[in-house]
Amino acid sequence: SEVKKIAVIAGDGIGPEVVAEALKVLKKTEELFGYAFETEQALFGGIAIDERGTPLPEDTLEICRSADAVLLGAVGGPKWDNNPKELRPETGLLGIRKALGLFSNLRPAVVFDCLKDASTLKPEVLEGTDLMVVRELTGGIYFGDKLRRQGEFGEEAVDTCVYNVTEVERIVRQAFEIAGKRRNKLASVDKANVLETSRLWREVVNRIAPEYPQVELEHVLVDNCAMQLLRRPSSFDVIVTENMFGDILSDEAAMLTGSIGMLASASLGEGSYGLYEPVHGSAPDIAGQGLANPIATILSLALMFRMTFGYEAAAAAIEAAVAEVLDAGHRTSDIAVDKSKALSTTEMGDLIVAAI
Amino acid sequence: SEVKKIAVIAGDGIGPEVVAEALKVLKKTEELFGYAFETEQALFGGIAIDERGTPLPEDTLEICRSADAVLLGAVGGPKWDNNPKELRPETGLLGIRKALGLFSNLRPAVVFDCLKDASTLKPEVLEGTDLMVVRELTGGIYFGDKLRRQGEFGEEAVDTCVYNVTEVERIVRQAFEIAGKRRNKLASVDKANVLETSRLWREVVNRIAPEYPQVELEHVLVDNCAMQLLRRPSSFDVIVTENMFGDILSDEAAMLTGSIGMLASASLGEGSYGLYEPVHGSAPDIAGQGLANPIATILSLALMFRMTFGYEAAAAAIEAAVAEVLDAGHRTSDIAVDKSKALSTTEMGDLIVAAI
Ligand SMILES: CC(C)[C@H](C(=O)O)[C@@H](O)C(=O)O
Ligand SMILES: CC(C)[C@H](C(=O)O)[C@@H](O)C(=O)O
Repeated sequence: SEVKKIAVIAGDGIGPEVVAEALKVLKKTEELFGYAFETEQALFGGIAIDERGTPLPEDTLEICRSADAVLLGAVGGPKWDNNPKELRPETGLLGIRKALGLFSNLRPAVVFDCLKDASTLKPEVLEGTDLMVVRELTGGIYFGDKLRRQGEFGEEAVDTCVYNVTEVERIVRQAFEIAGKRRNKLASVDKANVLETSRLWREVVNRIAPEYPQVELEHVLVDNCAMQLLRRPSSFDVIVTENMFGDILSDEAAMLTGSIGMLASASLGEGSYGLYEPVHGSAPDIAGQGLANPIATILSLALMFRMTFGYEAAAAAIEAAVAEVLDAGHRTSDIAVDKSKALSTTEMGDLIVAAI
Repeated sequence: SEVKKIAVIAGDGIGPEVVAEALKVLKKTEELFGYAFETEQALFGGIAIDERGTPLPEDTLEICRSADAVLLGAVGGPKWDNNPKELRPETGLLGIRKALGLFSNLRPAVVFDCLKDASTLKPEVLEGTDLMVVRELTGGIYFGDKLRRQGEFGEEAVDTCVYNVTEVERIVRQAFEIAGKRRNKLASVDKANVLETSRLWREVVNRIAPEYPQVELEHVLVDNCAMQLLRRPSSFDVIVTENMFGDILSDEAAMLTGSIGMLASASLGEGSYGLYEPVHGSAPDIAGQGLANPIATILSLALMFRMTFGYEAAAAAIEAAVAEVLDAGHRTSDIAVDKSKALSTTEMGDLIVAAI
C-alpha cells in the first residue's frame, strides 16, 4: 500500500522513551500488515528551546505539514517553567495547534479493568464509564487578544474570548458525528447563563441538532458538568465544549477513570490529518530511568491508525495486544501493585510488540 | 446588645421553606443569647420577575444595603430559564453581587460523617477532607464587556476577562488571612501558562506571599487542580482563584464531599457585610412539599453569626445542634437511607431548634 508519512516528536522528559516503544509497534505492523511508513523526527518543546532557541522551529512545522500525521511524546518540564513566554514549551504547543489547524481535541476517558482500583471513585460509580471529551482547540480565550494596561485601579490584564459561528459549527458537527458512532448521546457544555460566547455556542448546537435526530442532546452548564462527572460518570457518552472548559473537564474526566497514565488523545484538523499523543505529561522526575509506561503512547498510535489512516484492523490488533499483556498481569511501575515485579519501559514495549 | 438587621431573601423553589427554618433558629438564639435581630423580607429572583418584572428590584437592593447581612434561600427554576437575559434570576444574582460589592465567595467543602457514604469517592480518599474555596466574585469574564458582531467568518461573540491589581490583591489577601486561621496552606489556582489575567494574578500572589511567611503557598494550574481535587482532596486547605475557575472548582469540591445538600456559603464585601446562602439550588421539583433539607441554610446562618456578627458562641451552638441531631440519626429524605422514616423540613428545623 501507499507510504504514509509520520512526523515524530519525541519531546522532553519521558517523551523519547515512550515514543521509542510506539515506533517498535509501528515497525511490527509494517511486517504484519504490509504497511509502509516513513517517519521523520522533529525537534519540539524544551529540547527545541535548548537546541534551537524556540519551542517550535520552522522546520519542525514543515516536517509536520508534509506528513500525514504526527506522533508526539510529551513536552515541558521545570527547566523551562520560568522562561519568558516565547521560550516556553506551552507556547510551542499552542503554536503547533494553530499552525496545523488542529481545532478538535479528542480525549477518550475509559476505565481499564486492571486499573479500576487506581481510581479514587467507588468501583460501582465508575462501572461502565466510557466517555469522550471533544474539546475545541484553536479558539476561545486561549487565542484571543491579551494585554496589559494601566487602569483606574492600577495595572490590569485582559484576555479576550472570541468564537465565531464557523468555529463552533465545525467542532459541534464533529461531536455529533462521533456521538452517532458511539452511544448516541451528546452533552454540550457551556456557561450560557453568563457568557455571550456560550450563548452563541448553544444557538449553534440547537441549530445543528435536528440534523442528527438519533443523537440525544443535553445542554449542561460547566459548573454542573464538573459535578455530574463525579456523580454519574457512566451516564456520559460524548461531551463537547469550548477550549478552556475542555481543558479543565477533560483532565477531570481522565483522572476519575484512574487510568490517566494509559489514555491516548487525538488532535484533528480538516480532513484526516491528526496529531496523536498520550494524555500524561513529560514526567521529568522519572525521565531516562526506563520507568515510564509506554502504553498511552502505543494506544495513541492505534488511534492514529484508526482515525487518520483508516487502518482499523491494525488499530484493533494493537489495542488487543495491550489488553492481553495487561490481562497476563504485566505492569510498569506506575500501575504495578508489587513494584518489585514491575517491568521497564522497553520490556513492556517488547511484550506488546510480541503480542500483536 | 445592639440590634442587627438581616435582609431575608426567601427566593424561589424550596427557598421559602428552608429560610423559614433558619428564621426559627434565629429566634431561638435571640432567646438564648439575648441577641436582637430585625429581619426584613425582600423579593428577588424568579418571584421578583413574576411580581415586579425584574429579578432585582431597587427596593430589594435598598433593604440589603440598609442591613448588616443578607440571608438568601435559593433562586431560579425552569419557569424563567428561557427568558431574555434581563428577566432571568441569574442576572439578578450577578447584579446583587456587583451592587453589594460582594467580591469574595467562601465555599467550605467539608465531609459530614453521616454522609461519608453519599460521596462517590472512596472513604479512605475522602478521609479528613476539609477545604475552603475562596472565589473572586465580582470580576473576570463574568463582568467584562460582552458583544456580538459580524466577523470575517460569520457572526461572532466576545467575552472579555479583565482583572486589575487591586481586585486581585484584596481577594488574595483575604485568602491568606483565612489560611492563616486554618491549616496554613494556600493553593492559588490559575492558568498562568496561557492567560494574561492569570499571569497578573500569580504576580500579585507572589508579591503578597512574603507578608504571610507561615502560610505554605502552592500555585496550581486550573486543569491540574480539577485533577488533584479528585486525587488528594484532603491535602487542600484553602484554594483561592478567579471567578470562572472558582465557579467550576467550588462545585467540583462540593460534590466530592458527598455533602452538597448540607454546605453553606458566604459572599463577603468590604468590612463585615455578607450574604449567606446554601450551596444547593432551588430544587423546583420538590418545592412546597416539605421535603427540603434546611440544614445548609441553618449552617449559612451560623456562618453569618461567625463572620458578620462575631457571635462565635452562637455559631458554634448551632453547628453543634446540627451535629447532635444528625448523630441521633434524624434525616430529611435527601439524606435518609430509609426514606420512609424521613423527617419533613419543619420537623428537622424543630429538632435543631430544640437542640440548641
Ligand atoms: C500546556 C497547556 C498549554 C495545555 C492546554 O491548556 O491546552 C495542556 O494543559 C493541554 O491540555 O494540552
Ligand atoms: C447562576 C450562576 C450565574 C452562578 C455563577 O456562575 O456564579 C452560580 O453557578 C453560582 O455559582 O453561584
